[in-house]
Amino acid sequence: MKEKLIFTNLVGEVVDGLVAELGNPRVAIVADTNTAQLVLPLLVNESKAAAAATVITVKSGDVNKNIDTLSDLWKKLMDMEATRNTLIINLGGGVVSDMGGFAAATFKRGMRCINIPTTLLAAVDASVGGKTGINFNGLKNQIGVFSEPVAAVISTIYFNTLPQQEIMSGYAEMLKHGLLENPDTLGKLLASSPVYPMFDATRLLPLIEESVLVKSRIVEKDITESGIRKALNLGHTIGHAFEAYSYRRKSPIPHGYAVAWGLVVELVLSHIILGFPSDELQRFAAYVLENYGAYEITCDDYPALVADMRQDKKNSSPDNINFTLLENVGVPRININATAEQIGGALDIYRDLMHIA
Amino acid sequence: MKEKLIFTNLVGEVVDGLVAELGNPRVAIVADTNTAQLVLPLLVNESKAAAAATVITVKSGDVNKNIDTLSDLWKKLMDMEATRNTLIINLGGGVVSDMGGFAAATFKRGMRCINIPTTLLAAVDASVGGKTGINFNGLKNQIGVFSEPVAAVISTIYFNTLPQQEIMSGYAEMLKHGLLENPDTLGKLLASSPVYPMFDATRLLPLIEESVLVKSRIVEKDITESGIRKALNLGHTIGHAFEAYSYRRKSPIPHGYAVAWGLVVELVLSHIILGFPSDELQRFAAYVLENYGAYEITCDDYPALVADMRQDKKNSSPDNINFTLLENVGVPRININATAEQIGGALDIYRDLMHIA
Repeated sequence: MKEKLIFTNLVGEVVDGLVAELGNPRVAIVADTNTAQLVLPLLVNESKAAAAATVITVKSGDVNKNIDTLSDLWKKLMDMEATRNTLIINLGGGVVSDMGGFAAATFKRGMRCINIPTTLLAAVDASVGGKTGINFNGLKNQIGVFSEPVAAVISTIYFNTLPQQEIMSGYAEMLKHGLLENPDTLGKLLASSPVYPMFDATRLLPLIEESVLVKSRIVEKDITESGIRKALNLGHTIGHAFEAYSYRRKSPIPHGYAVAWGLVVELVLSHIILGFPSDELQRFAAYVLENYGAYEITCDDYPALVADMRQDKKNSSPDNINFTLLENVGVPRININATAEQIGGALDIYRDLMHIA
Repeated sequence: MKEKLIFTNLVGEVVDGLVAELGNPRVAIVADTNTAQLVLPLLVNESKAAAAATVITVKSGDVNKNIDTLSDLWKKLMDMEATRNTLIINLGGGVVSDMGGFAAATFKRGMRCINIPTTLLAAVDASVGGKTGINFNGLKNQIGVFSEPVAAVISTIYFNTLPQQEIMSGYAEMLKHGLLENPDTLGKLLASSPVYPMFDATRLLPLIEESVLVKSRIVEKDITESGIRKALNLGHTIGHAFEAYSYRRKSPIPHGYAVAWGLVVELVLSHIILGFPSDELQRFAAYVLENYGAYEITCDDYPALVADMRQDKKNSSPDNINFTLLENVGVPRININATAEQIGGALDIYRDLMHIA
């Protein structure tokens, strides 16, 4: 069954409609400590199904997207005597939908779930496409399955209270979708800024829909990421390495920032290996520097970063590091291998572009 | 892709052929402490792919089919830098294929695996049909996914050194398949005995093939157990409750024995609710008593057993206990609800049939 994508600001009404369509099962809402406090009361006000649901709260933050929190979530499903027929509603960001989606896919070998993303990042990325899972042994998303929710209900009504950093994170994934789509979509995004007060979440829903549909069209062709879905990994091979490295250095950077910087490095690699146009690269790098600043690294950090990249799920062998790169805006090429030397060269140029000493 | 079932005693040759067909990936063999010592050397002698593989040993026994052992298995896959392209070969009984299959389904969101069952029970049950998972929080197989191996290589060459108890366990699942299939298949099984020295594993391969194909035809129609696959749960609602209860009482009974006794109780329920013929019930109960003995329970045990049945994955609500029962041999009926009173009545008659005071 294909995931249903619903773009609406009438969330409560839509949720009640979906629950009725599914035969009025019992509902468990998985929320994190933040969304349970800030968002859940809004949803409960608007939805009978949410008001009647059992609430399961998990600790917030990517650092808690681990086997311990997941075990706790499974236990709470057992405590409520959840069955295969119980419906999970994931109310939160990507941490909640990744972990709640994995719990749903694995509890009694599979329950149904619905995602209600409460962050821009989750709306344009994690809530769609069925990647679920947890971090393991210090590496991101090492354990999980592909399992699509029955629906994602995507709105902007929860975004106005988001920290600036969350908006920036989501916008980075939208930039990625723009790079994958065409110069027009990318141009619209580069012409505006995600930084307050320029930015108004309530006017964002059409742009989000455009962005989600870029992703959803790609996922539909290749749910298990054996081919073209790898295009969506643009920026993420480097981005995940930045993220994992920052996590081990005990000063974690937000996912979207890691992606923004990862996109710059991978556009440099695209330029080196596939001749991606230099002016597009410079324009994009300048935009990222202005809006996201820079992730500071030195050449002493390269070996550890490359070691992390070797763990990337896309690699078919530990000897190759596999990238999705661009020939041009809208022209992705998957399964491009780069050597540690080429990556080092790209990181050198990234540091120049980002004005890092 | 449908699971390939290969019945052969030329295991090494067949495995090397499969690995070549899959593009000669790196191979990880998951074995338990017993099969690593007793079976692996035989396979390594006969298979180049096995000789070149990385061996991952997990603790043997259902008591170790848990999240800790699974985490250890995931870590060892990371240590060997396994990728999505690495092939897992599960060499062992159901504990190994359940846990190794779940690890394969979830590591980096999915690798391929092949099952080589080394027990009769695994050959006729766990190695086929894609149920993977672990026990959790004291209950059996609460966490897992449906994920078929690319192939199962089924032989009898590893059975001659099996303990009697393992043969009995496997034979109980064959009895179940006989009950589901027709009076002829059942008759053949009831006419022979799994007890040494009557029993000769080397002459068993055709009977195993007949039995596995009963299961595989049913699974093919309904991989995710939303309908007819539930027929295969015959004997297992009661059987799992016996097993979980014995586990908590610190005197665990083997799975197949629990199934044999569970089949007797569920045939009693079938008689009460669906009019299953009394003479077939008596004949079957006598066979089980003669070959398996009896699981001793008193009426004081009923509430705890019923509480365990409520946790069964097939239930759509905690208020109903859902059974697969038989109208007659070869005529299963799924989704039959029974009350705690009816179950108590059936357990009373079971105790009579089994000569329990």
